[in-house]
Amino acid sequence: MTTDANTPDSGAAAAKPAAKDPWDLPDVSGLVVGVLGGTGDQGRGLAYRLAKAGQQVIVGSRSTERARTAAEELGLGVRGLDNAECARASDVVIIAVPWDGHAKTLEALREELAGKLVVDCVNPLGFDKKGAYALKPEEGSAAEQAAALLPDSRVTAAFHHLSAVLLQDPAVERIDTDVMVLGDSRADTDVVQALAARIPGMRGVFAGRLRNAHQVESLVANLISVNRRYKAHAGLRVTDV
Amino acid sequence: MTTDANTPDSGAAAAKPAAKDPWDLPDVSGLVVGVLGGTGDQGRGLAYRLAKAGQQVIVGSRSTERARTAAEELGLGVRGLDNAECARASDVVIIAVPWDGHAKTLEALREELAGKLVVDCVNPLGFDKKGAYALKPEEGSAAEQAAALLPDSRVTAAFHHLSAVLLQDPAVERIDTDVMVLGDSRADTDVVQALAARIPGMRGVFAGRLRNAHQVESLVANLISVNRRYKAHAGLRVTDV
Repeated sequence: MTTDANTPDSGAAAAKPAAKDPWDLPDVSGLVVGVLGGTGDQGRGLAYRLAKAGQQVIVGSRSTERARTAAEELGLGVRGLDNAECARASDVVIIAVPWDGHAKTLEALREELAGKLVVDCVNPLGFDKKGAYALKPEEGSAAEQAAALLPDSRVTAAFHHLSAVLLQDPAVERIDTDVMVLGDSRADTDVVQALAARIPGMRGVFAGRLRNAHQVESLVANLISVNRRYKAHAGLRVTDV
Repeated sequence: MTTDANTPDSGAAAAKPAAKDPWDLPDVSGLVVGVLGGTGDQGRGLAYRLAKAGQQVIVGSRSTERARTAAEELGLGVRGLDNAECARASDVVIIAVPWDGHAKTLEALREELAGKLVVDCVNPLGFDKKGAYALKPEEGSAAEQAAALLPDSRVTAAFHHLSAVLLQDPAVERIDTDVMVLGDSRADTDVVQALAARIPGMRGVFAGRLRNAHQVESLVANLISVNRRYKAHAGLRVTDV
């Protein structure tokens, strides 16, 4: 059957046999995960879920004091350090700072983040009376801004669509959502997929190169509309994979 | 629990009690649905599914001859007309033309589409050696371009993420995916949601205003990556709704 360029099948038609099972992912249980902006809701929620899954987690903040307080509240062996120390001590560093502080935070940590696997989960959004809308960073996306500012890091993007409410709620055992993982190096995206898969209910699904991160980040504006209309904490499941 | 502006919860926190059950959708079984570009894979697939669900469907094409041939092949009472006649004879008009011909096709049909409910499902994408990437129309999105070119029509956007292969395969009974529906008028998006829900397996989920259509259209680039990696015909399910 033929397919045209306007549908998601366009790629399937051009696909070659897989060199490798896409679900054959590395063991990431020994990696230390730092969460910059780990005292915000998104960062704290991710830190909680990953630590609960058995990962060694460090929460980073501009203030060591706030990082320590958050870490104590989280328990589960989570440590709290300032952002620079957090970056230095981690193998994988999740960027969960507000979009406003994104560029400034990363610029200041270029050295500490060199060689690290960076996972950007920042969603550049604006808000007005009509709700949320996408902001378009000059570099294309928050993730591409990170890649431009961190030439010595391995930058990926993931964890955009997660509800901070669900992440932080200890009564919620499973979170029914997939995590879209983007990046240009398969070794790196495989690690991030494996990390996402440690959280009960989640799968990490490869969803393209970094140049296609903007729409994944921006889609949070749509999920906000879904949440308003349906009184939900919406997530996304990729079907047929 | 507090939430920050970087997560999909931002809207839920601000939500007021729903005035209306979001699943209380109108009866659309009597509406005539036209599909412009109905001889392409996406349009033909949609025409097939809607007709199979009992909808009166007209396939439109630049060539009456090709429209008639497609309609005969589809059966199920589908009629074939040229694009202008198709638009005139339909209550709801789905735009499934290639992005290349989008603006030209709509400009030529402004009069025929006046007063109609238009459903844009076009995904502006570019392709190179690295795969697919998003194109950004000057108006923001294909749907916003349609709204700009059709000031007298009621423009919505939906049906972006569907696999033409699955849509057209008569052996496939259910298609496991949701349809994100965007638009600025609830009466109109409700109709489109109801239309999507007629196809077994699908739900129509309201996913925001037209100004947030770009990322929904562009996400097809990511689904193409998913399809390549997983040898799949991926769809998207919105969880927790």
